Amino acid sequence: MNTVVTLLQSQLGSIVSTDQDELEACRLDRSGHRSESAPIALVHAATIADVQATMRIATETGTPVVIRGAGTGLAGAAIASHGEIVLSTLGMTRILEISEDDEIAVVEPGLINADLNAALVAKGLWFAPDPASRAISTVGGNIATNAGGLLCAKYGVTRESVLGLRIVLADGRLMSLGHRTVKGVTGLDLVGLMIGSEGTLGVIVEATVKLRRLPQGVPSTIGAYFPTVEAAARASSVISASGLRPAIMELLDPLAMSFIAEHLGIEVRAESFLLVQTDGEGAAAEATGALAIIRSLGGDATLTTDVAEGNRLMALRRSFHPAMEARGTVLIEDVCVPRSTLPAMFHAIGEISARYGVTIATVAHAGDGNLHPNFVYEGSADDGFAVPEHVWTAAHEMFVTALRLGGTLTGEHGVGILKKRWLRDELGDDQVDLQRDIKRVFDPSGILNPGKLFSVADESRPADAAAHGALTE
Amino acid sequence: MNTVVTLLQSQLGSIVSTDQDELEACRLDRSGHRSESAPIALVHAATIADVQATMRIATETGTPVVIRGAGTGLAGAAIASHGEIVLSTLGMTRILEISEDDEIAVVEPGLINADLNAALVAKGLWFAPDPASRAISTVGGNIATNAGGLLCAKYGVTRESVLGLRIVLADGRLMSLGHRTVKGVTGLDLVGLMIGSEGTLGVIVEATVKLRRLPQGVPSTIGAYFPTVEAAARASSVISASGLRPAIMELLDPLAMSFIAEHLGIEVRAESFLLVQTDGEGAAAEATGALAIIRSLGGDATLTTDVAEGNRLMALRRSFHPAMEARGTVLIEDVCVPRSTLPAMFHAIGEISARYGVTIATVAHAGDGNLHPNFVYEGSADDGFAVPEHVWTAAHEMFVTALRLGGTLTGEHGVGILKKRWLRDELGDDQVDLQRDIKRVFDPSGILNPGKLFSVADESRPADAAAHGALTE
Repeated sequence: MNTVVTLLQSQLGSIVSTDQDELEACRLDRSGHRSESAPIALVHAATIADVQATMRIATETGTPVVIRGAGTGLAGAAIASHGEIVLSTLGMTRILEISEDDEIAVVEPGLINADLNAALVAKGLWFAPDPASRAISTVGGNIATNAGGLLCAKYGVTRESVLGLRIVLADGRLMSLGHRTVKGVTGLDLVGLMIGSEGTLGVIVEATVKLRRLPQGVPSTIGAYFPTVEAAARASSVISASGLRPAIMELLDPLAMSFIAEHLGIEVRAESFLLVQTDGEGAAAEATGALAIIRSLGGDATLTTDVAEGNRLMALRRSFHPAMEARGTVLIEDVCVPRSTLPAMFHAIGEISARYGVTIATVAHAGDGNLHPNFVYEGSADDGFAVPEHVWTAAHEMFVTALRLGGTLTGEHGVGILKKRWLRDELGDDQVDLQRDIKRVFDPSGILNPGKLFSVADESRPADAAAHGALTE
Repeated sequence: MNTVVTLLQSQLGSIVSTDQDELEACRLDRSGHRSESAPIALVHAATIADVQATMRIATETGTPVVIRGAGTGLAGAAIASHGEIVLSTLGMTRILEISEDDEIAVVEPGLINADLNAALVAKGLWFAPDPASRAISTVGGNIATNAGGLLCAKYGVTRESVLGLRIVLADGRLMSLGHRTVKGVTGLDLVGLMIGSEGTLGVIVEATVKLRRLPQGVPSTIGAYFPTVEAAARASSVISASGLRPAIMELLDPLAMSFIAEHLGIEVRAESFLLVQTDGEGAAAEATGALAIIRSLGGDATLTTDVAEGNRLMALRRSFHPAMEARGTVLIEDVCVPRSTLPAMFHAIGEISARYGVTIATVAHAGDGNLHPNFVYEGSADDGFAVPEHVWTAAHEMFVTALRLGGTLTGEHGVGILKKRWLRDELGDDQVDLQRDIKRVFDPSGILNPGKLFSVADESRPADAAAHGALTE
């Protein structure tokens, strides 16, 4: 391994770090997983040439590379272990161009989502992808995971906001994909293939992203309590089906609300909470429509156009993750189901929680049918915060239920190491094999993020529950 | 070849046609190109099993297959020649499911776009992809070409309306891609890869498409004359840049207007014409804003909310293609440039027309920067309506100009056989090779639409103009 580090240092100099604290930090992301041991080196790339040089050395020496941005991923795709190089693009933060006329920006991958939006706001423009991590996550990471967030039902996922990419291939070659235009159908859609590929196909070194005009007018915000989570889920389904298109529609179950209340030191009702925010010119009319639906379905609702009061309601939602983390170690899940099956999915989660004696608090992007059940348990740093067996068993049952309802394992967090064992359950053997063959076209020697998204040995999911521990490697 | 036909007939019976008129019809699409000779058989698939059986026989015998829907393509991707099987999915027309709650439909590929919308209108729903051919083109064909149309700037291209696909691979295996949910990031995005792949990767046998609510309210329509096409283009750019989002914004140059007037037997001004239609709740306000911009930039405009008058204005635009066809043989081009460069692109087209003495009438989806310059010439059935050399040379110069302005060879029609020689100019050698390698993963023996999108011999574009004739093979 020293050869590889020596090669990196001789060609790239001081941007190659072997500082143990820095390497240790690369064993973690926000998934709660920790890799077996530290990687061999961390390259702080500042330029495309740095990325190319790193990949050339990796190819020559057959050394695996983990591409890393801000490390905010929730599926373990950017954690690195022994023998691996971490290639960080966090230092590539430039905004290369903003075109107001064409409503596009060209940016480097390490740019923080919120920093891009800070640069756009004075121009009345906006990069719509809005993961909860937007203050700390990078545009490159948003693209590598096809990040979602609170605003997707109305404003789309990251896929809808990317027109073109420049990537560095495993062997160091630079390639431009896609275009600067609104439309373009020259050849196969490799931009789409890169988006959400979790570092397995190439290194994103530049992105041409589509911007939107900032919505005009004052947002309207509704907070509504419901006696059951199924009733709240039904109201959200009916709001979507009615054709109203809130910017935000978040559903918190009673357990989530009680944890948040305790965390914030406030009092809330021990009920389910539906939070709806409409924006744009039609905000007031849309909110009135949503309010009528909520009340007719048994919700106890208030509507506000006061910004401070709206922010207070939104803060409840944004306190969800800190409140969970204050309770213990958390496995954040991410299933997505057709909107109409939200009540059934919430019902099933309640049953699974009871059956396995697992604490599960859930928030859902209800307009998308995307649920984040949070499994709270007692974890320990000694075993890398490994998820206990009965929690995995409960999670497994939840995945199977989501698939049975026509849903998917992951709405926005990705597969990483967290869900790769269930990949074949959703995609089938033929498709997983086809996807691995496509990966091999990009990365014939398999040095790009091995063991993420796909299993290294391409093994099937082990039938015995005991094998679950391997996930937390 | 008889062996192949015999095999097909023995397994598939009467759905296998060798009728010479039917086979002859498969030599053409709407591109004006005609293949060298007729294919060997036409399979009228009615079921997925028919498609699988056809592909299994094709694989066993090494026989190329051209997948065909309604044959409305404009790039020659669905025309078939000697030794090839045509696999028609035009008979697979069922709507398998419409879910109002989840705003999705599951359909077979041969369903006509307009027939799907006819089934949706009573439910207040709508499949947004709106190619000019929507009355006669299939949903499967829309997907295979990532079809655009008049409404893309506001409502997106076909890519934005497809959630899942079932495909049959070259070897006959059936595979489900994507999902029924709004979001989903399990594995690589193979749905996106299939969309626009022009029959080179697999056979689309079912699609789960995303529906929209039909826009409410009365549309407003503006017709505006401008003294120069550059002025009209500038007005359209400014309307987009202002944040207004018309449903339709079409620009016709003076030549196009004069041909249309002659064709319809009406009088119009020999000027450029900008047609703007706004829809939805904000239609009136948006139209007022657009009108002010148009007038301040020198446009002579009228605004109407009268449906009949709006239709009369739209009919001018919809008469463009019939009017062109009445003038001679037409090469319909399809470059797309960043919106801000529309004036420059129109200027360049004028220069190219003058330099090569070629009649070029242009309509543009101005909100997208997507131009359709129509090259009108004297063609003859005897040489397969081959495009004359000087027309190809002029078209070549136009492609180069579009690329130089940051644009693309094709905004919505696709590559087919028409533009494959320019593929490397836009994508570069490395990317074309990578795309071909991806095709090989899906289709290792190369039987799916050989010579479309990619060149069979993977040849570079010949430097000499004389080689252009090969395009019209």
